Amino acid sequence: MNRLSRVEALKELAFEKKSFDGFLVANEMNLLYFTDVPGAACLLIPKKGQGVVYTYGVNYEMVKAESRKFNVELVKRGENLAQKMAPQFKTAKIKKLATDAISYDTYHMIAKGLRGKAKVKVQSRIVSELRKVKEEKELELMRKAGELTSLGMKVAYETVRPGLTEIQVAAEIEYAMRKKGGWGVAFETIVASGVHSAYPHGGCENRKIHSGDVVVVDMGAMYEYYRSDITRTIVAGKPTEKQRKLYDVVKAAHETAYQAIKPKAKGKDVDMAARKVIEKAGYGDLFNHGLGHGVGLEVHEAPVLGPSSKDRLEVGNVVTDEPGIYFVGYAGFRIEDTVLVRKGQGENFTKGPYTLEAEA
Amino acid sequence: MNRLSRVEALKELAFEKKSFDGFLVANEMNLLYFTDVPGAACLLIPKKGQGVVYTYGVNYEMVKAESRKFNVELVKRGENLAQKMAPQFKTAKIKKLATDAISYDTYHMIAKGLRGKAKVKVQSRIVSELRKVKEEKELELMRKAGELTSLGMKVAYETVRPGLTEIQVAAEIEYAMRKKGGWGVAFETIVASGVHSAYPHGGCENRKIHSGDVVVVDMGAMYEYYRSDITRTIVAGKPTEKQRKLYDVVKAAHETAYQAIKPKAKGKDVDMAARKVIEKAGYGDLFNHGLGHGVGLEVHEAPVLGPSSKDRLEVGNVVTDEPGIYFVGYAGFRIEDTVLVRKGQGENFTKGPYTLEAEA
Repeated sequence: MNRLSRVEALKELAFEKKSFDGFLVANEMNLLYFTDVPGAACLLIPKKGQGVVYTYGVNYEMVKAESRKFNVELVKRGENLAQKMAPQFKTAKIKKLATDAISYDTYHMIAKGLRGKAKVKVQSRIVSELRKVKEEKELELMRKAGELTSLGMKVAYETVRPGLTEIQVAAEIEYAMRKKGGWGVAFETIVASGVHSAYPHGGCENRKIHSGDVVVVDMGAMYEYYRSDITRTIVAGKPTEKQRKLYDVVKAAHETAYQAIKPKAKGKDVDMAARKVIEKAGYGDLFNHGLGHGVGLEVHEAPVLGPSSKDRLEVGNVVTDEPGIYFVGYAGFRIEDTVLVRKGQGENFTKGPYTLEAEA
Repeated sequence: MNRLSRVEALKELAFEKKSFDGFLVANEMNLLYFTDVPGAACLLIPKKGQGVVYTYGVNYEMVKAESRKFNVELVKRGENLAQKMAPQFKTAKIKKLATDAISYDTYHMIAKGLRGKAKVKVQSRIVSELRKVKEEKELELMRKAGELTSLGMKVAYETVRPGLTEIQVAAEIEYAMRKKGGWGVAFETIVASGVHSAYPHGGCENRKIHSGDVVVVDMGAMYEYYRSDITRTIVAGKPTEKQRKLYDVVKAAHETAYQAIKPKAKGKDVDMAARKVIEKAGYGDLFNHGLGHGVGLEVHEAPVLGPSSKDRLEVGNVVTDEPGIYFVGYAGFRIEDTVLVRKGQGENFTKGPYTLEAEA
């Protein structure tokens, strides 16, 4: 592949297209992206010369052993991170520093420590622009995360039944994914039953599932720091005609959006494709969230598929397709897959039956 | 109990002791603390009058149903959050707004949206000061989280053996906690074996545990959003004399610190109590992290027990006591419990044997 390395690509965006002469990576997930190991405190990439990873004692040995692309410096107890970096600013002649998505307090600490040395500007989007186009190596990990997630959903279909609690269902899903080598959950598993299924983020509590309950299961596995995201709607017992009809609206919207997920498609247009199906069925007001979001090292990242999205899809994006309709006091219906944008049709990383019928 | 409500306590700190006339809670965990339900976008508490929770459509119905202490306002698609809040600033005459621990981008959005209406100042510590003194209701949930965590550690002792992978051990721990009603993990489970145990944050991968490996298990359960944190060091097979000696140093440091965890003790003194034991044994340089941290809705919160801590313990704090020594290329040894500060001796929320011997 003729692709720039991550650091080279960052340099092009930050130093060539914009006129910064240094980039400070301080966001935890962005650090993981560049250093391949958790535990760095920050990474300073100068326009010229080698990048330096700064790390505290607790993580120093691990970062030094596993992060081979950068020099690694130990920040000792009592040392101020910004002061520690100061000599590097002189050596590399950094005057205009960009930094990434960080807390206000971290920004303040950095800006204060570098006062008189360099101007600091927060540029949250530069690294997220890089991260949203996945490399083949990342896609392999995401496929694996998708396989584990699909297995978890298979277990959900086999487990959902009246009498079990939401947490008991989550226990079986997560155990199955772990047993096959999962690195943990991509986010807190949602098993939302009955009226709670009408809340898109309906939680997972010690509630008993009742016969006839709609159960929304929204979950994912993590594999080597990469995540996946799937939702299925399952009825505990035999689905009613009403449930089937509502489910079919969501299924049609999900399929329509899937067909629209292509390179160059606008995020708002893909959302609208699904939204129109739901509006036509008369439930437009009940689809109360955007269609989807990017997935990768984080479960919510760029690009966005929603009514106010300014993103345009490109090959290598990985996004969710998750339309839903929610009837407060009754039930919610949502179907979601994690999809790779590629030429022609998208590749579904998550697989699961498009049915309301449990197999328990 | 004669205790102020959370909002009253916030008002005292922000409006009486400092001269703000409005507080905007925008940090996710702080929102959960005040509203009791996840999903609020922010909460505006004026000096006079009722607080208002703002929430987007995706969470509106859930927040409205479960957050009874505040007015709840829907932020519609396309509406700007800061603009949406503006009328409230006029009504409640807010001119000096404090806000909590948030991202730089959120701060920027708020400050920009309120330009000309109110001055905005980030005050990360006000809510963390409140959260660090737990109420009885919170302690009940933390005791329950501790029970689940202790059960998980029991399973770890029963599971660690040569031939299993780190992830397989994690699978059994997490499954046991889930089966008993756990809401998920407090943080990503660490099962770090062999040379990886020498990294305090040594991960949990698809590595096989070998006979004689030191295995550091650091994990916790979440229960109704409250977390717990425990570490034990377990040998896969029969511990050697060397392993026992090193373990005993850490055990003595852990016990010494536990005795020092009392109301009014300084965070740096409790750390020093443990550190001296380890220094005396000749391993001072290898205890490369602070002794502990507060636990609650987050696994790392105030107060801090470490060499540069400025905190002083008080009744109702919940902190970890986790000394460790780490030999790069060989192994690490750490023992940790989650302890409630109370009059007299602390109460251990986590329980597990103080032994290297597995029960597998």
